[in-house]
Amino acid sequence: MFDSKKFYSKLGVTFESSIMNSIILPKPGTKLIRFTGGSYDVPSLPSAEVKRIFEEASPQAWAEMLQYGETAGMPSLLKELSTFMAGHKIKTDPTKEIIVTTGSQEAIDLVSRVFIDKGDMILVGAPTYLQALSAFRTQYPKFVDIPIDFEGMDTHILEEKLKKIKATGKKAKMLYIIPSFQNPDSSLMTLERRQRVLELADKYDFIIFEDNPYGYISFEGPMPTPLAGLDKSGRVMYTSTFSKMVSPGMRIGWITANPEFTDHMIEAKNNTSICNDGLSQYAAAELFRRGDVARQIPKVTRVYRKKRDVMLEAMETSFPKKAKWEEPKGGLFLWVKLPRGFDTDSLLMESVKNGIAFVPGSLFFSKPVHNYLRLNYSLPSEEDIVTGIQALGRLLKEKL
Amino acid sequence: MFDSKKFYSKLGVTFESSIMNSIILPKPGTKLIRFTGGSYDVPSLPSAEVKRIFEEASPQAWAEMLQYGETAGMPSLLKELSTFMAGHKIKTDPTKEIIVTTGSQEAIDLVSRVFIDKGDMILVGAPTYLQALSAFRTQYPKFVDIPIDFEGMDTHILEEKLKKIKATGKKAKMLYIIPSFQNPDSSLMTLERRQRVLELADKYDFIIFEDNPYGYISFEGPMPTPLAGLDKSGRVMYTSTFSKMVSPGMRIGWITANPEFTDHMIEAKNNTSICNDGLSQYAAAELFRRGDVARQIPKVTRVYRKKRDVMLEAMETSFPKKAKWEEPKGGLFLWVKLPRGFDTDSLLMESVKNGIAFVPGSLFFSKPVHNYLRLNYSLPSEEDIVTGIQALGRLLKEKL
Repeated sequence: MFDSKKFYSKLGVTFESSIMNSIILPKPGTKLIRFTGGSYDVPSLPSAEVKRIFEEASPQAWAEMLQYGETAGMPSLLKELSTFMAGHKIKTDPTKEIIVTTGSQEAIDLVSRVFIDKGDMILVGAPTYLQALSAFRTQYPKFVDIPIDFEGMDTHILEEKLKKIKATGKKAKMLYIIPSFQNPDSSLMTLERRQRVLELADKYDFIIFEDNPYGYISFEGPMPTPLAGLDKSGRVMYTSTFSKMVSPGMRIGWITANPEFTDHMIEAKNNTSICNDGLSQYAAAELFRRGDVARQIPKVTRVYRKKRDVMLEAMETSFPKKAKWEEPKGGLFLWVKLPRGFDTDSLLMESVKNGIAFVPGSLFFSKPVHNYLRLNYSLPSEEDIVTGIQALGRLLKEKL
Repeated sequence: MFDSKKFYSKLGVTFESSIMNSIILPKPGTKLIRFTGGSYDVPSLPSAEVKRIFEEASPQAWAEMLQYGETAGMPSLLKELSTFMAGHKIKTDPTKEIIVTTGSQEAIDLVSRVFIDKGDMILVGAPTYLQALSAFRTQYPKFVDIPIDFEGMDTHILEEKLKKIKATGKKAKMLYIIPSFQNPDSSLMTLERRQRVLELADKYDFIIFEDNPYGYISFEGPMPTPLAGLDKSGRVMYTSTFSKMVSPGMRIGWITANPEFTDHMIEAKNNTSICNDGLSQYAAAELFRRGDVARQIPKVTRVYRKKRDVMLEAMETSFPKKAKWEEPKGGLFLWVKLPRGFDTDSLLMESVKNGIAFVPGSLFFSKPVHNYLRLNYSLPSEEDIVTGIQALGRLLKEKL
């Protein structure tokens, strides 16, 4: 065997396989209770609906599915996505302002490539989505952390940081934000703060990249209006996905932005995937057209609300007093704060031995913070939630 | 509207939308005869087979399709791919040496990220696949062109260039190669040259990235053994795809490499797409398992052979004497050489006005070469091939 190590690029050598990968994604044959990734509740998946769509597809539809499609996406799906977004005040031209992507993750990758240069200042929540941080990192930006509280990103601190950056003669280029049921802490940004962020973007001349996978899973009333629905400037790029509301396996995500930005991202996509899979694009368009998406969202939201309640109740009775959390009004996660100095990275190793997995909070910060953990309630059964939370509670009590 | 232009990265600003994009991919409602992209013969698409697979899928299969899957790919598909590749002497462990990708294009992107640094010397055919060049370019390598003749890459010139590079104290890092029915010229590398390339890789210590979308479309006997089937060193990474042999719309590609390399590429894929679509992965695994792939390849190869013959005959009678080409023994393309000084980029504009599109040869070279054009015969009907070639022949005769 030749010496393979010297062939990696500077970026490539950083792609070491991590323990987290084997833990976050479910693997067949293991007996772990997983409070890890944001996977779907299996019994709620729209199998019957998708099956029916393929049964009823015409020969023309099959030809469209199995042949190359346009890079931006299947026209019927783009049209449905435009209509869907109009329902939450985001106005888009489906022929030039939307790109279908492989989940939101590909949208994040396209934005990274098309907008981020080495050293660019990117404003991110602390904490925020771990795989956005890792995708951005492939372009070597400088992260500027903005604290998140339970009303979302702190816009006072955001403005202070922007002022400081301006005072040094520099500029922030982009803000990455998950305003509705933020991953990992499920915080919900207030309308006032949403409007403030948009004002600051105009004043300090940066672009906004809004990620909204969780907003649809809202336990108290309709989804809060996204920044993209409030924006008048064209500065907001908006991505969402089927992964939390319909099906993660279909890998249907999308991004909308002003047509110049989408043009450049389409060209970038030509180098990475050429176009999305036709089978799932066709099924997605039909799920919209038949009203299945509109029925699926409240259906799965009820399931997740129930699971959240079960998890909250189990935590209330099993977790030590020093563990703190807020009650999520939507989304898939509970975010637990432990006393300063507590290290959830090492807790994970022990927890896995006890048959329970979670995601340590350190992964959601651009700088090291170790006293948080994230618990997912969408995948495990109600029974496993109770068993797993009790076991984790015992372990936490031992350690605290 | 704010000034959007200043927000692009150095890479992003290069992603200008090109005329070629609107020409290469078929668009509904236009009346162009397209000899452009490598699209599939529509009547040959395996619609009935895929439809049957979804009709017969079990509830467990639906749950697997619609949920997140493993980043490397669906285990059943990885197993089928391993068996399939064993049929052409490529031995792989399906649990750690194969990654399912979104067509071959994502494999090319993953290799670009994990292996190419700015300034790295990458050996490429002249000509070679245009979207490999553009994907590699996102990492700013230095291309070293190796001429291709109808017996494939010229290994004498390859060795001369390697000697010269060594003499300057430098090293080539990677060779990108399409040995069987090379895009765009459909050349077929001899076994002797294949073995020579592997010897040179050991001697000059570079890695090989073999791209084999077309080898399966072989008009005279079985597919020639890929470099990956001859290699003993672990230096060869091999990618192939459903796009030419089964269905491009399914976006099923894969890459195999030594397990250290795949480990790093799986981590890279976590940042870009997380995992492939479950619907098309399940269908692909079943198409293999049921023998549909084994039946589909000779079926579509017969269709392409017939279309090649129709195109060759029309060219023989319609093209001017100064246009030169070789008869492809496989693949989807005819590569036409015109006299030095002839510019096929400007010919394209005029040709499109006459209702005919092709791909100008300049796109397949890392440095400007303008007197070639590529004609695809897999997509257009036999009737359109005759009509289109006659019209293109008239135009060429006018110009020459």
